[in-house]
Amino acid sequence: MKQHGAAALTLAGLILLAGCTTPASERAQAPVAVAEVGSFHIGGRQATLDGLPAKEVRFTPTSPLTRIDPNGEFEVGQMYVQYVRLAPAARRAPYPLLMWHGGGLSGVTWESTPDGRPGWQMFFLRAGHDVYVSDAVERGRASWARYPELYRSEPVFRTKKEAWELFRIGPAGSYQDAAHRSAYPDTQFPVAAFDQFMKQGVPRWLTNDAATEAAYDALVQRVCPCVLMVHSQGSTFAYTLANRYPEKIKAVVGVEPSGALDPDKVDLTPLSRVPLLFVWGDKIAATPRWQGIQAPMKKMIAALKAKGGRADEIDLPARGISGNSHLMMMDANSDQIAALVQDWLVAQGLAGR
Amino acid sequence: MKQHGAAALTLAGLILLAGCTTPASERAQAPVAVAEVGSFHIGGRQATLDGLPAKEVRFTPTSPLTRIDPNGEFEVGQMYVQYVRLAPAARRAPYPLLMWHGGGLSGVTWESTPDGRPGWQMFFLRAGHDVYVSDAVERGRASWARYPELYRSEPVFRTKKEAWELFRIGPAGSYQDAAHRSAYPDTQFPVAAFDQFMKQGVPRWLTNDAATEAAYDALVQRVCPCVLMVHSQGSTFAYTLANRYPEKIKAVVGVEPSGALDPDKVDLTPLSRVPLLFVWGDKIAATPRWQGIQAPMKKMIAALKAKGGRADEIDLPARGISGNSHLMMMDANSDQIAALVQDWLVAQGLAGR
Repeated sequence: MKQHGAAALTLAGLILLAGCTTPASERAQAPVAVAEVGSFHIGGRQATLDGLPAKEVRFTPTSPLTRIDPNGEFEVGQMYVQYVRLAPAARRAPYPLLMWHGGGLSGVTWESTPDGRPGWQMFFLRAGHDVYVSDAVERGRASWARYPELYRSEPVFRTKKEAWELFRIGPAGSYQDAAHRSAYPDTQFPVAAFDQFMKQGVPRWLTNDAATEAAYDALVQRVCPCVLMVHSQGSTFAYTLANRYPEKIKAVVGVEPSGALDPDKVDLTPLSRVPLLFVWGDKIAATPRWQGIQAPMKKMIAALKAKGGRADEIDLPARGISGNSHLMMMDANSDQIAALVQDWLVAQGLAGR
Repeated sequence: MKQHGAAALTLAGLILLAGCTTPASERAQAPVAVAEVGSFHIGGRQATLDGLPAKEVRFTPTSPLTRIDPNGEFEVGQMYVQYVRLAPAARRAPYPLLMWHGGGLSGVTWESTPDGRPGWQMFFLRAGHDVYVSDAVERGRASWARYPELYRSEPVFRTKKEAWELFRIGPAGSYQDAAHRSAYPDTQFPVAAFDQFMKQGVPRWLTNDAATEAAYDALVQRVCPCVLMVHSQGSTFAYTLANRYPEKIKAVVGVEPSGALDPDKVDLTPLSRVPLLFVWGDKIAATPRWQGIQAPMKKMIAALKAKGGRADEIDLPARGISGNSHLMMMDANSDQIAALVQDWLVAQGLAGR
């Protein structure tokens, strides 16, 4: 049995453990001092089903028929939030960092990459942020509710082909099957781990936006002041809430955000007081669908700048960083991009070195 | 902005951080030195849907109809595993601890309790174990697949009344609605957090046992040698795999396990070489359904003992610890019970002080 006594640790090792005065390169391998790992559910309501017929089912193919009554009370519309809080000695950011995922995905987005490298959750923990990763309503550990009785519609399951093209791993028409997929030649996505990535996918509904926004609102009430980091579909909720609570939300990092507020319909004055960062991958200009998704974002950015807001953009290919997919937190150069985001947070006074 | 330099830490504080020579009472508040937080999916296969009709759906009530084609390739049958690996200096157990949840639940079982106290995941991290918490096939972040095309049956959603009675928070007939629930007078379950607990519930299917066992088998191949800690329904998979791989699975802690191997049908000789612990809560004797669930477990225990196996039982009420529900890792005295389990692991040479 392995036993490690304190006597075996040098003082230098202990200071490394605290992680306070070491450069980032050494820090990347050093332990992180964690105060607590935990989770909670937030939001939601009680719903009641009645009048549905009972069913006779078999719990295994050979077991006797068992009567199941689907009627009763349930909790629906809640969200799941998992946190890692650092020890005070390891914390170098003034506010927790909340990571919100995109459509058809869950908080797993931010964990280890599909090819097994540490993901952005670990990067930003090492960089001194308390990190809260959530699964929005209906996704992952948030759970989901019976349809059409409680959710109005049926779920949508994303195919591999759709993911391959939508996430810009390869161009339209480049996915046939496992043996015949051609990615962009310069793609940063770990292509050999694409099937592994697809195991992260979860069904989504198209009729739960109001419940999701309410749950995120409750999360902001509970955990913020905070910084939001959002991917893709999560952005609509982030900008809506930052526009509602500009004092609670200290910044929003949009990783290819895909849902903008329309300045012709929403007064963006509160949001113009919140520092915003937008990070764009490669091949957007070559992809009509992504041009269409990006256009409303660019309109929002222009409107915010006209109001004197801070809306910074990192266009990776314009900086000579090519081949990034929509899933840049999983790409081969994910740490490089995370470091750019961290630099921006430091510049805003929202992270330490 | 809060900044904490190493200079602010005393040497005593740093040794506390390493957590090696401190008594458990102090350790309960000390930081834990973590090497990595991460996750992966494991198991599963590709499935293909074809011939299903496309549908026209609205992504929001006011958006135009969009055509969705449900046909294509998917990953199904995978499991989700999240791990927290300790720094070597903080690790005091020779093997990782794998926590498997029960029916209608996910890995959230092991995280913070519904009333917000640190759960067993944090307890056993503090006690020096690397901890792997999984969501079995179909649950939580493992994702699930379309039915009846890929899963053969429809899911079952557990009502609040069923949970209240099944988990022995109150006796049969004691749940009416939120305003009229009467728990056992001595219950240890945090009754005010019962609705919060219900937010953890996830739907379950009755036809996925083979895929679940295959995914757990793949996990054992990847992560073990290890110690298993299983709750309720998770036990069938744990005893099956320990009987298959008695050299890889160094012990199984069964927290009210509810699925036994039948010694009349399965040769338990391999399992008799694996140290087993069984922990039983209160009110089992007063609950016919739980008497029925426990009886096959007791039969397996007797058979293992007859073969010279180590099958230890902690009957909490027999030890004067009353009021524990089926969810003892969430009960008010959860730390007390975890400490009993840790003592047993220490006695087996599977944990350090």
